[in-house]
Order: sequence, then C-alpha cells, then structure tokens
Amino acid sequence: MKIKDAEVVVCSPTRNFVTLIIHTDEGIYGLGDATLNGRELAVAEYLKEHCIPALIGRNPFDTEDIWQYFYKGAYWKRGPVTMTAIAAIDVALWDIKAKALSVPLYQLLGGKSRDGVLVYCHANGTGLSHSIEEVHRHIELGYKAIRVQSGIPGIEKTYGVASKGKKYEPATRGLPQESVWSTSKYLNFIPKLFEAVRNKFGFDIHLLHDCHHRLTPVEAARFGKDAEPYRLFWMEDPGSEELQESFRLIRNHTTTPIAVGEIFNSVFDCNKLITEQLIDYLRMTIVHGGGITHLLKTAHLAEIYNVRTGFHGATDLSPVTMAAALHFDMAIHNFGIQEHMPHEPLVDEIFPHAYTYKDGFMYPGEAAGLGVGLNRQLAAKYPYQRAYLPVNRLEDGTVWNW
Amino acid sequence: MKIKDAEVVVCSPTRNFVTLIIHTDEGIYGLGDATLNGRELAVAEYLKEHCIPALIGRNPFDTEDIWQYFYKGAYWKRGPVTMTAIAAIDVALWDIKAKALSVPLYQLLGGKSRDGVLVYCHANGTGLSHSIEEVHRHIELGYKAIRVQSGIPGIEKTYGVASKGKKYEPATRGLPQESVWSTSKYLNFIPKLFEAVRNKFGFDIHLLHDCHHRLTPVEAARFGKDAEPYRLFWMEDPGSEELQESFRLIRNHTTTPIAVGEIFNSVFDCNKLITEQLIDYLRMTIVHGGGITHLLKTAHLAEIYNVRTGFHGATDLSPVTMAAALHFDMAIHNFGIQEHMPHEPLVDEIFPHAYTYKDGFMYPGEAAGLGVGLNRQLAAKYPYQRAYLPVNRLEDGTVWNW
Amino acid sequence: MKIKDAEVVVCSPTRNFVTLIIHTDEGIYGLGDATLNGRELAVAEYLKEHCIPALIGRNPFDTEDIWQYFYKGAYWKRGPVTMTAIAAIDVALWDIKAKALSVPLYQLLGGKSRDGVLVYCHANGTGLSHSIEEVHRHIELGYKAIRVQSGIPGIEKTYGVASKGKKYEPATRGLPQESVWSTSKYLNFIPKLFEAVRNKFGFDIHLLHDCHHRLTPVEAARFGKDAEPYRLFWMEDPGSEELQESFRLIRNHTTTPIAVGEIFNSVFDCNKLITEQLIDYLRMTIVHGGGITHLLKTAHLAEIYNVRTGFHGATDLSPVTMAAALHFDMAIHNFGIQEHMPHEPLVDEIFPHAYTYKDGFMYPGEAAGLGVGLNRQLAAKYPYQRAYLPVNRLEDGTVWNW
Amino acid sequence: MKIKDAEVVVCSPTRNFVTLIIHTDEGIYGLGDATLNGRELAVAEYLKEHCIPALIGRNPFDTEDIWQYFYKGAYWKRGPVTMTAIAAIDVALWDIKAKALSVPLYQLLGGKSRDGVLVYCHANGTGLSHSIEEVHRHIELGYKAIRVQSGIPGIEKTYGVASKGKKYEPATRGLPQESVWSTSKYLNFIPKLFEAVRNKFGFDIHLLHDCHHRLTPVEAARFGKDAEPYRLFWMEDPGSEELQESFRLIRNHTTTPIAVGEIFNSVFDCNKLITEQLIDYLRMTIVHGGGITHLLKTAHLAEIYNVRTGFHGATDLSPVTMAAALHFDMAIHNFGIQEHMPHEPLVDEIFPHAYTYKDGFMYPGEAAGLGVGLNRQLAAKYPYQRAYLPVNRLEDGTVWNW
Repeated sequence: MKIKDAEVVVCSPTRNFVTLIIHTDEGIYGLGDATLNGRELAVAEYLKEHCIPALIGRNPFDTEDIWQYFYKGAYWKRGPVTMTAIAAIDVALWDIKAKALSVPLYQLLGGKSRDGVLVYCHANGTGLSHSIEEVHRHIELGYKAIRVQSGIPGIEKTYGVASKGKKYEPATRGLPQESVWSTSKYLNFIPKLFEAVRNKFGFDIHLLHDCHHRLTPVEAARFGKDAEPYRLFWMEDPGSEELQESFRLIRNHTTTPIAVGEIFNSVFDCNKLITEQLIDYLRMTIVHGGGITHLLKTAHLAEIYNVRTGFHGATDLSPVTMAAALHFDMAIHNFGIQEHMPHEPLVDEIFPHAYTYKDGFMYPGEAAGLGVGLNRQLAAKYPYQRAYLPVNRLEDGTVWNW
Repeated sequence: MKIKDAEVVVCSPTRNFVTLIIHTDEGIYGLGDATLNGRELAVAEYLKEHCIPALIGRNPFDTEDIWQYFYKGAYWKRGPVTMTAIAAIDVALWDIKAKALSVPLYQLLGGKSRDGVLVYCHANGTGLSHSIEEVHRHIELGYKAIRVQSGIPGIEKTYGVASKGKKYEPATRGLPQESVWSTSKYLNFIPKLFEAVRNKFGFDIHLLHDCHHRLTPVEAARFGKDAEPYRLFWMEDPGSEELQESFRLIRNHTTTPIAVGEIFNSVFDCNKLITEQLIDYLRMTIVHGGGITHLLKTAHLAEIYNVRTGFHGATDLSPVTMAAALHFDMAIHNFGIQEHMPHEPLVDEIFPHAYTYKDGFMYPGEAAGLGVGLNRQLAAKYPYQRAYLPVNRLEDGTVWNW
Repeated sequence: MKIKDAEVVVCSPTRNFVTLIIHTDEGIYGLGDATLNGRELAVAEYLKEHCIPALIGRNPFDTEDIWQYFYKGAYWKRGPVTMTAIAAIDVALWDIKAKALSVPLYQLLGGKSRDGVLVYCHANGTGLSHSIEEVHRHIELGYKAIRVQSGIPGIEKTYGVASKGKKYEPATRGLPQESVWSTSKYLNFIPKLFEAVRNKFGFDIHLLHDCHHRLTPVEAARFGKDAEPYRLFWMEDPGSEELQESFRLIRNHTTTPIAVGEIFNSVFDCNKLITEQLIDYLRMTIVHGGGITHLLKTAHLAEIYNVRTGFHGATDLSPVTMAAALHFDMAIHNFGIQEHMPHEPLVDEIFPHAYTYKDGFMYPGEAAGLGVGLNRQLAAKYPYQRAYLPVNRLEDGTVWNW
Repeated sequence: MKIKDAEVVVCSPTRNFVTLIIHTDEGIYGLGDATLNGRELAVAEYLKEHCIPALIGRNPFDTEDIWQYFYKGAYWKRGPVTMTAIAAIDVALWDIKAKALSVPLYQLLGGKSRDGVLVYCHANGTGLSHSIEEVHRHIELGYKAIRVQSGIPGIEKTYGVASKGKKYEPATRGLPQESVWSTSKYLNFIPKLFEAVRNKFGFDIHLLHDCHHRLTPVEAARFGKDAEPYRLFWMEDPGSEELQESFRLIRNHTTTPIAVGEIFNSVFDCNKLITEQLIDYLRMTIVHGGGITHLLKTAHLAEIYNVRTGFHGATDLSPVTMAAALHFDMAIHNFGIQEHMPHEPLVDEIFPHAYTYKDGFMYPGEAAGLGVGLNRQLAAKYPYQRAYLPVNRLEDGTVWNW
C-alpha cells in the first residue's frame, strides 16, 4: 500500500477544526485531527506545503519511520505547530492501518485493558449557587467525575464560564478578548466553592478543578493545601509549565493530586515531571503531543513512574482526536480518566463517530480504525472563522499567564 | 505612535526569506525576519492570520507588553513556528523604536561593549586536501576564526559540503533529499582533518567544527576528547539537544568547549545547559529564539553562568537577523563569536544594509535602527520556491538525527 | 557625547542622601543615588577618589561597558559600598541616555507593561490597637497593600515603630542605639496581630510583614506556618540571608510567600534563591544592587524562575532611586509590588520629581529620563549629619541579626 | 581596659597603605591593616566616620562581641570595603590583647603547630628565558616554592611582569591603565613555560602559577589538564569566583590543585568551594576577610573538608597583615603555604617588624602582639598617591575579568 495523496480540510461548525485526510492507492483513507485552537491556519499551511508533498509514495504502515522522518529527520522539532502536524499524520496512518486490518484501533495498541473509559464532565457556574446547580445537573446525567469551575466574585468575566443558560466554547469568534484576572480573589473564593459542593453532594463523586495556569508556584502550593479537605480528584494546570522544576515547590506542600499537560507537545515537556513524580496525571493530547506513536512512548514512561493519563478532551479537539483518545484509553494500562465535553450536534453530524457515552463512561466502539468519518459536503458549508481564547491581564494591566 | 498595519513578504532570491514589515501611523516602519528554513509558509500564515490583526493599534514602543501578549498571553507557547513569529514582531518593534529615537539599535541595548564583532567563516572541503585549501583561502580573506567541515571518506554526500567549485546553501530546492550517514566513519576521520590543519596552519587561528547533532552523547564525549590536542574553539551541536541532561556525559569527559542552540526557541530549551554550565557558547538566534526581548533575558542568564554567545549566522537567516545579531553582539557583555556566512549578492541587493565585514570582524554600522532596508520591487521578482534540508539515514536505513 | 565631570552631593534634609551628578559636554546631566544608610561617606569617598576620575571622557551611552569597567574590570567586586557606587554611576548614565533621546526611562527598558505601579505602605503601631488604627488610616489613603508592624508586648522598643504621633525614619541621628530583642515574644504576638487585622478588615486588602532578619530558619518556618490563615502577601526578610541554602528549610514548611533582598548587592547574593525558587519576591534595590544594568539581568533571571520584584522603597533611598524603581517597575514583566514610604516634604522639595501617587498606585511620569531634579541651593543648607540604624541584642546581651 | 581612641593613617611609601591604630586607656595600642588596593580612601572613610566613633569605650578584649557588633549588628554586611574595615579593627584588638598578655599573637591562636612557615616567592620574567633566570635567582635565595609568571608572546603587557631589571608592584600610580589580554595566546604558551622550567630544574622545587581570574571555567579545566605533567603545587585564581558552582567543571577535569580566595571577603564567598571540596588552598587574607576572628572560623571549616590555607601575601598588604598571617600560619593545623613578596626597604622602615625570612621559611618572631610598629614621622613624609591595578580588555575591546 502507498500513500497517494493527502488533503487538509478546515471547517468551522460552531468552531474551527483542521482535518487531514490521507488517501492510499488501495482506496483506504485515514483521518487525522490537526486542530490547534487559535493557530489553525498555521498548522494547515505546515501540512500542505511542508509535509504532504514528502508523504506521497510512502508506505502508510511505516508509522515509526514516518514519524521519525518528520521529527528526528527534520531540523525543526517540538512546539505546538510542528507536533500537531506530525500528530495529524500519525493518527491518520494508524487509522489506515487499523482499517486495513479491519480492527478497531485499540486492538493494535494492546487490546482492551478495561470495559469502558471513565470520563469527567464540566460543571461551570456563574457563581456558587449556579455551580452547585450545574454539579447537580451533571450528576443526573450519570457522570461519576465532575470538574467544577465558577465565576469569581469581584472578577467580571472568568474564563470557561458562560453567561447563565449559554454554553461556552474554548474560543470566541473575532480577535482575542482581554479579560481581567485577580489571583487573590480566586484563591479566597475557590475553597469555599468546594466546601459548599462537598457539603451538598458528599464525597462519593469525584471533583476536579482547573486553575488554567494562573497561579505562581507558591500560590499553587497554597491552593493545593487549602483544597485538601475537599479531596479533589486533581488540581489541573496550577501554574506555568515551561519550567518543570517549579512543580517541586507545589509538590512539597500538598497531597492534592496534580494534572498537567494539555499544552505539552512532546515528552521533553514532561520528562522531569514524570521521572521526579511531580505530577499524578498527564494531560498531553494525541493531537498536540505528536500522535499515537509519540504518546504511547510517553505513556509508557509515565507507567514506570506511577503517573496515569487524564487526557484533555474539550471541544477544541475534533471528534477524530476524541476517538483516538478513547481507543488509547481503552488499551494502555496506566489510564486514569478522560475529559469529556460533548461537541455541538452539528459537529457530531459532520464527524459521525462510533464512540458513545453512557452512565459516566465512554466507549470507542467496534468500527474498524478510529471509527470516525467526515461529511465533507456539510463541512464545506461552514468555512473557517477567526476565533481565539481571551488574553488575561492582572488588575494593573500586566499580561498574565495562560 | 501606533501600529497601523503589517505585511509579510516572502521572497526567494537564491533561497527563501520571510520578512515582516510593521508600519506605524508616523510613517516609521520596522523590519523583522521570520524565516524558518523549510517551514517558511507556516510562519508566514501564523503571522498573517494569527498575529498581525491583533497588533493593529498597539504602541510599538511597548516591546515587553507585546512580547508577553503573544507569549504568556497565548495558550500555545514555544516551538519553532511560534517563536519565530514572535521574534519577527519583536525585532521589527525594536527597529521602529531605534529609528524613532534616531540611534543605531545597539545604543538601546547598552551601547558599545567592544570595537567590532569577531566572526567565523566556513571552510568546507570535499575532503582533506580541499578543506585545507579552503582554510587557506579564508585566512587570506582575513578571518581569525574558521569552521572546518569536510566530506567524509566512505560517505557519499556530507551535509554542508558542496561539490568542488560550488557554494552550498543550507537547503536545496525541491523536496528533502535523503543522505546516508555513518558516525563511525565520521569519528575516524575528523580528528585527522584537524591534525592536518593544525600541522599546516599552527595554533594562532581559531578552528571550529560542527557535528550537526549527529552523535550520541558518548560518541560526542569521545569526539571532544579526541579533538583536544587540536584546541578547537568549539565543537558545535554534538548531539540531540532536547534532553539537556544528556550534555552532562559529554561535559564530564572533555574540555573541548561546546556550542549549541541554533535550533532552540526559548530559554527553556537551554536553562539547564546554562545553569549547570554544560555549554560554553549559546547559539540560539534572535529570529528563532523569540527576538531581542527574549534573547536579552537568555543572554543575561548566560552571563551569570559564564556562558558566552556564538549566534548561528548562516544564510538561512536574512540580513535582517544578521543586522539584529550584530547590534546585539556589539552591546552585550558576554559576546563570544558570531557566525558569518555571506549572503549571495542578490540577497544583499534586496536587503541593503549598513553592516560591513573587515579583516575578521563585522560592524553593525551607525544607521538608525537595524540599518537594513527591503527592496520590494526586486524581491517580488523572486517568489517563494520550496526548498529543504536533507534527511539523514544510517547505512541500514534508520532515520537519523538532525 | 562625552562625560565632562561628575560631583557628589551629600545632604541631610531630615536624613542623609548621597547624590552623584554626571555632566556631559552637551550640557545634559544625569543623577544617580549613592545613599548607603549609615555608610554614606564611604560611598561618597569611593566615588570621588576611586571612580569619578576614571569616568571622565567616556561615552555616557556605553552603559554596559562602563558597568563592566567598574565591576569585572576591577579587582574588588560586590559588597554594599562597591555596588552602591557602581549603581549611582549606572543610573546617572541611563538618566542621561533617556534625556538625550527625550523619552522617559521606562521606554528604554521595554515600554509600558502596566498602567500603574502597585505600591504598599507602612502601618506601624505601638501595639495591637494602634496598629489597627494605622491600617485603617492607610486604607483611607487608598492603599491596596499594607505592611503591618507593631510594638511587641514585653519588648521596650521595636525597630520601625515610632512613639505614637511621630514618624519613624530608618536611622536615628547620632551613634547606633542598642535595642533589646526577644524572638519568642515576637513569635507569640505577631500572629495575633494579623488575626485581629483580618477580623477587622477582611481579606480584600493585601497585608505584608517584615521580620527584619531576626529569625533563625526554623523560627521563620514556624512563623510562616502560623501566618498562613491570615494570607500574608509576603513575609519579608525572615532571617539571615548570607547562606542562601538556609531558605530551603523555611520553604519546605510554609506556603506563605517570601520576600528578601533589600541588603543584597548582586545577583550572586540571590542566584540560588531564585533558581531553586526559594523566594517569591526579590527586594534588591537599584541603588544597592549595581544599578539598572545589573538589576535588569537579575530581574530577567527571576522572571524565568517565577520570582517577581518587590523593591525596597523606604526613605533611606532618595527620590532618585524611587524614580528609577518606578520606571523599572513599569517596564519589566515580572513586577510584583513596590514599597512606598513617602519622603518628608523637604526631601521632595530638594528632589523635585515627576512621579506621583494616586489610589494605591504610583506612576513614574512622562518627563524625559528619570524625571528627578536636585535643588542644590536648598540641599546645601542641610549638611550631612551622622545617623544610624540601631544594633540589636538578645535579652542576655548577645549581638543579634540585622 | 577601654578603647580610648582610634586613628587612621594613610601613607604611600612606594605604595599606599591604610593603618588603623586603636588606643586604650592603659596606654597599649594595637595596629590593624586596612589597605584595600585601589580603594584605600573608601575604607579609611568607612573607619573614620562609621566605625571608630562606635568603638570608643568598648573593652578591647571583647573581640567576638565587637566583631559581631560591626557584622551581624549592622545592616550592611560583606563586601571588600566593609570587611576590610572590620578586619582592621579585629586585628588591632588581637594585637592589643596579645600585648596586654605579653605574648606573641600565635600563642592566643593555639600556640606553635610548626617550626616555621613555608613561603613561596615570585619569579616573573618578560619571557621564557627571563623567567627561567628568575626561577634560578629565587632558588639561590633559598626558596622551596616559586610562583612562575611570564610575559606572553603576542601580548604587549602581561600583568605582574615588570620590564627587565625593574620590580613590579600590584598597582601603578595614576588612573587605571588598560591592557590587552588574549586567553588563547596565554593557554598556548604557559604549558611550554612549565615544561621548560621542569626540564631545567627538575621536580624537587614546588612550582605555582597564578591565572589572575582570566579564564572561563572550561578554559581553566583545559589549563589544569595541560599542566598536569608539570606537577604544579597549585593553579591560582583560574577564573571568576563569584559563582562557586563554576569550579565543579574545573574540578571534574583535572587533579592540578586549585587555590583561590585573595579577593574573598567572608566565609560566604567560599562555603560551597570548601564543603564541596572544589579547592585545595584558601587564599582569603586576614585583612580582606574580616580579620583573625572571622578567618579562624573559615580556616576551621576548611580543616574539616581537607582544604589548607595559602594566604595571599603580595605587597598590597602592609607588614601588619604579613605579621598577622605569619602568627596565624604558625598556629592553625591546616596551614599549607604562605605567599611572600618582600616589601621595599622603605616600607619595612616605616613598619619595623619582628618577622623574618630564612631559607624558604618565615617566622613571626617572639615580640608581644603582632610584633609590628609604625614610624609615624616617616610615614607622614609619604602621603597617599592615587594608584590602581590595570583594567584588561580582550583584543576586540571587551572588558575582561580581574
């Protein structure tokens, strides 16, 4: 089998997705997600001009060689654009291989290691009482694990919280909005939120929380300590992650489990976090972390050091990545949990998929390959529209961390 | 002063260059190089779609705020495409500021710290005797420091060595060529090359050598040790650089000075190399390392830890980066050496510049700002043409390191 | 432009200040503060005899070269007298450069990174109730952050607390007074003070506290832990700072943020504190830390390691340093907070300045350079008068730490 | 006994010396050297204005309390000016105490631990053959250990080497001269020098060499390795010493013993060098390292870690320090060697002393106290004259290390 051609499809059904389609001379094609939230067109161009021409004629079964060709063989390595492009190629090749062998992808990754994939959902409230309503609503939907976020008293707009009755997407159309952030207001409020949630719903449900990288290391250490009585499943992205050593400080002060990695792009972004056991859950995604080939190696390293996976799974990843993650989650030993933020119905229509949700668990399905298709006619009706995450500034105007 | 608009110009006068032009409402404009060898269009797209629209209306003097806006303010950080785009913006803003204040850029970076910038050139031979001829030729040109490379007996084509009488460019038009590499042939030959060069030219000339990341750490340690009698100024890029700790092994075995970093994109790619003093020279470039704002911080870190700069300066960087580097080299205290590979005359015509070479030294010149212009009419005659560095495979076919 | 001459002016309008004036052949002059509390004349002599003669004829734009000339070029480095003298020269040169280019100094340091500079003030009470009154009074003045100190029951005289109705200056005229200190009385009292302040004023105001180096590491660890419920913005100078490793013990036990450095004189006094992330805020001042050139390098190091600035800003620094700090604070990314202890009106009259305070923030102003002048006629009326900080002894007579 | 008064005498018999005289109410006085080469008047002023007034009335036997009063009791610690002033006070008090008890000082420091003090001398030649002559001349004078320095071919003026037939002083009258330095020329030449000296004089004489801080860590590592065949007693001051960690690199590569510390001012400048055993000999002097009280503690730390003393003893220290060092060397266990550069006869006349040299050894003598006097009438004839060490620049004009 040989790669005959490849195409990049950019569409925006409520939000932007970049999809790579690799065609083979035997008619089998594979899909890869190449969506990089807010940097979509740079990846599309990277694939179209700099990768696809070099793919033609290669054997799609050579997943390792092709991965190394674009990583070690290239002068430029690492970074979000590069690794997202490599991931899209890699996932599409695994999709082709599994389809060619007529098995669901998880069979090529080690088979079934569990019955289903434990997922967590998002309960986002505009404030304490609304957040409690949202937790309640998601418990009713069967979720066993819930990430709780809330508007912060005194902060006008908190990322990830929509106005009541609306849904939020991790990106807003147009240029980046600028929001104001106050760490001290946040730190004063959040422990009260979890105290209230635990008082209301007890300790049988898993609660998670995402700090969105906003804290300095010592603030994160304080937060972890303050949150201990509420037994978080994890605190996510407590602070900037470029300097892996900075997690030592957090880790010294708290037993609240730590999850990081949704913005990581290779094992070199987390090798110290893992080998020093500074984290408990790795969130690096298949689409941004170099694909299945590279993430398998990273998950294998994590297994040795007692770190489990907890992949990012917001709607900024297309159903192609969601499917790839579920196959991966099903197969590896050190799976922990999977984020689940359901796509809009239109997105599911454009990317029809075999995976399903039931009672707090998800299942990749038994279709060959990833089990995801692409309705190109429908996709074509929703062309790319510029959309971005907001930029945060402190109250004095200083640009602050994502 | 406000930013009114910005444009990206891609041209290919013998090789591809991506140039950012930022225009202000007061008529002053600034130039930034955004060339990422072999990934040019991804950066161009990144700038056009994802950065320029957010630049309009900002004060170009706010170099720090704008840098942080695109780095800390953004979800996606680091990596070659991202940091090259940020660098292009940053350099163009510094060009504007220095022009607005009517001083050459180095004055804003601390003034003159030396009389001129020591540079090294390339002597690349097809084999031992041709390399010796090339060294001789460059000594005649006044160079005080010469990087010596050579074709390796038994390897058909060695990167960086053109056929006799031709020049080499770090990229060849068309898709990536695949070359064969043999570390053992290389390691057996290169010490003999330097023995011959020292026997012929003595010890008063500085000799450098570039390993192009091809060695494993223990091979690099052996190479450094073998090269000690020939007193290399440095051994460059001895091996893969993603894992900074791997330089401990090299460093333990040899006092041959080490230079790395031309593929680094932020301080986080080298913080351990610097603070553990595993290297002697940092080669991260202004264009790929986030611009002047970020490289100043990195150079300041390096100064504390006795690491000096030795910026990459091959023709894969446009004259805009060459000028920025020379101003930077002139001003900082811990300058070491600057690579100098002259551009083709056509490139110099398209980018007329104030910097000059004389007797082994370069000088940024006294024009306000960077002192570089862009002849857009001429540039327009040379549109982008696909060109890539080769991919290396071992003799058994394994993809090998860049 | 060339340096034509330089003079040192020592005056004592309520307290001593040493000011360096550098004159150029183009009529532009620059001011540098050289005040070293209680060691004023040693610095004045150092400048007059050992530095000024070597300055004449140099180009004032060469800030880096002149800094290195007096630091690396000299046999004697580091230490308070040396680094204060170098700082005075450096600040005066930056003042000249910014004036020559007709921009406020912050523009040369990266432009505006925020709208204004968050400052903290001093509320010093003779005891608990007086301290609470003082906190209240400063809240009314608009401050968002307040350092709270108090007389300690059982200790006759606590440094930094004036008798009721009087102001304190960090120095008393005449020879050093000797005071008695009791760590155990202090440790028993201060947490109660903060409990009372939080009960009265809630958690929306930032509270800081200065330990004036009086604690051993394990005592500081205890203090930090005891203070956690009161959410200090920071604990300052918990213990002796010569041995950077000693902060590991403090850091292991508490998440109370730590600020140190007002007596530091170079990056080598804090490189380990920063790279091991043992502190959160660096207080090394521009005047005692080698000036803008050296502090920029140190702040850049701190940025990488998530350490922010919190410069010392008591009245023992002249308005020249206050202005330099505000420009610096405005420009760098990793600014945290700035100390603000207003000078006596007479001091402001002798040093007329562009900087202002409003509603908890300060602003450097838009005058070219530092924006500070010196009224020499008025200064001449207030000649130097010996004044010192007190020396502390334990209750058994042992000399104790500053 | 009480301190009645103290005076500072600055004189310049061929070179500048600062001497502190402390008078007691019982007529006994003590001498302390306060000479800080090229920064003399700053220390003189520091003592006169900031220390002496606080000394009056204290008991001169309270050496520990008075030391702590000026160190821990003061806000400003460390650094050359501060610690030289404290040292002068401390040495003068020890002189008083020993005189009051009618014993030579060494008796108060532990008595005699050896018969005499092994010293090394300076053989400085303008080039290879002159250096060999100088070695020969010093062997004839009975020296068992010789520091060999030489003019470097291709460097116009090398520090520490006088024109033939003249003596050199570590300082030249007038403002600092600027010299040119080339590390590569130096590194190419010095091993040849020692090869020649060993060929001529064999291995029975101790040979030392001083690098004057000119090398980077990796260059120092190379130098140490290159020098191994010539069995140096030590390599001195191989590089910058502010960053103690940088000696790890040197230490990893060579067994050439290392001596550092003549510019150190407290134990905090060398605590890591000692506890990590990165050096073999500590050169911190009594006059610049806080006096006998502080240096005893430092030597005691060094003893634990197998580091021996090798005090700086050039003519930039007055005979008062030479005497103090010889008493110290006689008494402590971990004495290694003592530098001996004889003063000009006029200096010995102004400071008549009990110490003597014979056959490669020195002896402190048996006079009470330090055994040094001060001829004030004669001293008064030689007032202070400005004199400085040169400043070094690299061949490209960059300021280089002292």
